[in-house]
Amino acid sequence: MTCGLEERLARVALGRLAEPGDPRLARLVAELGAVEVYAHLREDRDVTGVSTDIASRLAGLDPEGELQRAGRQGIRFVCPGDPEWPAPVADLERAGTLNGRGGVPLGLWVRGAGSLADLCGRSVSVVGSRSATTYGVAVAGEIAAHLAGEGVTVVSGAAFGIDQAAHRGAVAAGGGTGAVLACGVDRAYPAAHRGLLDHLAAEGAVVSELAPGCAPTRLRFLARNRLIAALARGTVVVEAALRSGALNTANWTTRLNRPLLGVPGPITSAPSQGVHQLIRSGAATLVTSGEEVLELVGAAGEHLVEVPRGRARPRDRLPLRSQQVLDAVPVAACARADSIARTAGLGLVEVRSTLVRLRAHGLVEELPTGWRLAALAHPGADGPPA
Amino acid sequence: MTCGLEERLARVALGRLAEPGDPRLARLVAELGAVEVYAHLREDRDVTGVSTDIASRLAGLDPEGELQRAGRQGIRFVCPGDPEWPAPVADLERAGTLNGRGGVPLGLWVRGAGSLADLCGRSVSVVGSRSATTYGVAVAGEIAAHLAGEGVTVVSGAAFGIDQAAHRGAVAAGGGTGAVLACGVDRAYPAAHRGLLDHLAAEGAVVSELAPGCAPTRLRFLARNRLIAALARGTVVVEAALRSGALNTANWTTRLNRPLLGVPGPITSAPSQGVHQLIRSGAATLVTSGEEVLELVGAAGEHLVEVPRGRARPRDRLPLRSQQVLDAVPVAACARADSIARTAGLGLVEVRSTLVRLRAHGLVEELPTGWRLAALAHPGADGPPA
Repeated sequence: MTCGLEERLARVALGRLAEPGDPRLARLVAELGAVEVYAHLREDRDVTGVSTDIASRLAGLDPEGELQRAGRQGIRFVCPGDPEWPAPVADLERAGTLNGRGGVPLGLWVRGAGSLADLCGRSVSVVGSRSATTYGVAVAGEIAAHLAGEGVTVVSGAAFGIDQAAHRGAVAAGGGTGAVLACGVDRAYPAAHRGLLDHLAAEGAVVSELAPGCAPTRLRFLARNRLIAALARGTVVVEAALRSGALNTANWTTRLNRPLLGVPGPITSAPSQGVHQLIRSGAATLVTSGEEVLELVGAAGEHLVEVPRGRARPRDRLPLRSQQVLDAVPVAACARADSIARTAGLGLVEVRSTLVRLRAHGLVEELPTGWRLAALAHPGADGPPA
Repeated sequence: MTCGLEERLARVALGRLAEPGDPRLARLVAELGAVEVYAHLREDRDVTGVSTDIASRLAGLDPEGELQRAGRQGIRFVCPGDPEWPAPVADLERAGTLNGRGGVPLGLWVRGAGSLADLCGRSVSVVGSRSATTYGVAVAGEIAAHLAGEGVTVVSGAAFGIDQAAHRGAVAAGGGTGAVLACGVDRAYPAAHRGLLDHLAAEGAVVSELAPGCAPTRLRFLARNRLIAALARGTVVVEAALRSGALNTANWTTRLNRPLLGVPGPITSAPSQGVHQLIRSGAATLVTSGEEVLELVGAAGEHLVEVPRGRARPRDRLPLRSQQVLDAVPVAACARADSIARTAGLGLVEVRSTLVRLRAHGLVEELPTGWRLAALAHPGADGPPA
């Protein structure tokens, strides 16, 4: 099934009549269909009051011309029903609104060679502050590279800081990555990312709900963030100050019932404050690596991570009886064998022979004043293992 | 009520016959009483097999002399029933065992002027790695200072790294702090902390389950950790590598159903790995300040923390209609008023007058090519507010 031409043109036209993520329009289209809503508006029949705001924009619409001009720029308009329409976006219909934005987009303008559906089949959003720290940039790049290396598309917003690091990490790993913009896909915002966006269009995809030529506004960033969340199986927030737009993407992820993951950082770092609050409140799960991201976002059991453990120590391989003797050997001052035997609650003969065996393993040392732990068996820098 | 002399002597003697935290002995004492258990052992009647291990230690016991010698060193033995016995320690009876250690201690040897019960009435443990980073040391010191400043006693283990920073932070804030040792309270382990321990004894308390003169062993550290958890209302883990002893204290805190809190750090920092795992698994709640610690550990509602928010921006105070116009003004390139009116879905006259008002507020600027956002209203370093 493919979206028909009349439907496609109606969706292009309606996109010009309202701001992206206008939940009233999305609801109308879901109820009546794009063709009928467009027809109503052209006939100047006020459908539930929507046309009052948009009547002034009906003149001068040319959806056919718009599609043609976009096509010449290598830009296509993907609609629900098209083979490459990313199915998970439909969840936005039941995700409510945030900041007055919400609903399934009328369509998505795409610049890029690959199929959007394929690209988003296995995808994770990696988002965060523009004013990222070197720590955040390094971590975002590493996580994105790991995801891309495992065949997962990295979705982000092409902004400075974490977004850029995420795209770059995926590119460096030779993996897929897609940018979702708050302006037309022919534009570069920020302008400094023109080269990055061209590269993403060539290798992955640049996506927007806004028609070519549209400029970014605050409202459009908010509408865009819901798409970053909706185009991925889950979202990783790497750094986000307390008013970061990344927290808006995080909220959308929660609304969509998809895994929300947060990378912690120093509590002294402002760009980690928002992430810490997400983790602390239980909204986000703490992750420390790309492996952990995949475990939580992948299909159940697909990417189970081994719980990290400290490396085993020589003492762990000793028989229980020898461990009991070793436990009774003091850390600092020396003790005589009979004192160790008393502490261990064992016979002196057995303790003496065990101490000699432990010395052969390099675990205890004998000094003129008695026995004590050797460096190898020392509780060590972090105290006794738990 | 005060613990009687016969009971006190029996507890001192039993403490010499078994390792601290021996759950079999703790269970026997809970069932039969210390006096009867001690009498059984002296009569060489094997009570459920315990005496086999400890028979060799019965000779040479002198609990009266031990109490007298300790008294001359300014050390007292506090028993259940004594006015200064810290009641929360009783929870260890139902907390099971970890690493073969567990149970209520027979008594606590104390060096220090203050009442142990008073000191532990409002107390929080602050623990972590010996091999702490400068970040961890700074954070532990700050949290401890905040707690101490609020009249909360900081409990820790007097080790290098986080423990030391916690004690010092509390001392610097003029607050109470207590150290729980894995050796006799007359000893200094590590030796470099002799001065710190003397200061804690003078101003707070140095506590141990072990009689004066006893040396630290691995098993004794594990037994000690349960007391650090049991003497406080909750535990904060600041830094802990994957095999850190602090994780043992964390486990005890969970066993005692008390709040376990973790301070995150960079995911690239090994001493934060153990804490991140505690938070990730849901065992610990993420905290980023002393205030948050008090909120979670204090009595309900006693220390409610305001959820941190970004500071309000000028745009937040605008009437809705003005915000709508502002939202339609592009971030980078300029737009003419009629284009802004189309985007906003508002009439041109209203938009023009609103733009002039917004310019007076410094939120937009007019250039020869049209209007755009001024720096004040710019989505800014972190994108649009969520």
